[in-house]
Amino acid sequence: MIRKIEHLGIAVKSLKNSNELIAKLLDRSPYKEEGVESEGVFTSFFKLGETKVELLEATNPDSAIAKFIEKRGEGIHHIALDVVNIEEELNRLESLGFDLIHKSPKPGADGKKIAFLHPKSTNGILVELCEDMEAEE
Amino acid sequence: MIRKIEHLGIAVKSLKNSNELIAKLLDRSPYKEEGVESEGVFTSFFKLGETKVELLEATNPDSAIAKFIEKRGEGIHHIALDVVNIEEELNRLESLGFDLIHKSPKPGADGKKIAFLHPKSTNGILVELCEDMEAEE
Repeated sequence: MIRKIEHLGIAVKSLKNSNELIAKLLDRSPYKEEGVESEGVFTSFFKLGETKVELLEATNPDSAIAKFIEKRGEGIHHIALDVVNIEEELNRLESLGFDLIHKSPKPGADGKKIAFLHPKSTNGILVELCEDMEAEE
Repeated sequence: MIRKIEHLGIAVKSLKNSNELIAKLLDRSPYKEEGVESEGVFTSFFKLGETKVELLEATNPDSAIAKFIEKRGEGIHHIALDVVNIEEELNRLESLGFDLIHKSPKPGADGKKIAFLHPKSTNGILVELCEDMEAEE
């Protein structure tokens, strides 16, 4: 079951500059910053209702974020969906013909299990599935 | 005050095909379809937690959606923020230097007042502000 949008990921050139800009836009400060070395990104998070806005700056030129900005410029990079059981969702989506980037979940930030779907099979939208490993709600 | 993401707008080539695809992806059906003649689009909506996913198909080749798809392909087109008072937010954002596409709100679908910010001033993100004219919450 898909519960909600967990976060929206925004590719930015400079986390420092965009933290200021997005703080003005949303009229609130980021509540945390976090590096994800395996992905080659440094991130910050803003709360927005039940969801979050995640800013992503590339920390190396081979990261997916650096390539995205080179090709398309700054902007919305992915949408992350909060799911109850990520293995069940991956099985459901694969059986429906969606193209999985990760056939099984991998560890993500925040103690989550995550997996991505290929945007070719989802109307050009890069979709991340997230399952929160801490009990909530 | 910005309360939440009101919806995410997705540009699609065929509403019929994408309704089927996004219904499979999100495991739910669209709850309504609506044409917005002034914008040259036909739309459908899916509920997702407190927010919505809006699919937009161009109904004429001069619409913003047709131009977006020509330039960037299908994908996430805009993010709409639910605000308590749209005039206040437009004043706040203009005073902070954001570039407003609409200096005052215009009528949108669903009995909302809406206005857009230019993506040049918002990290490449096309941002819509929405104020719901019906009392809610």
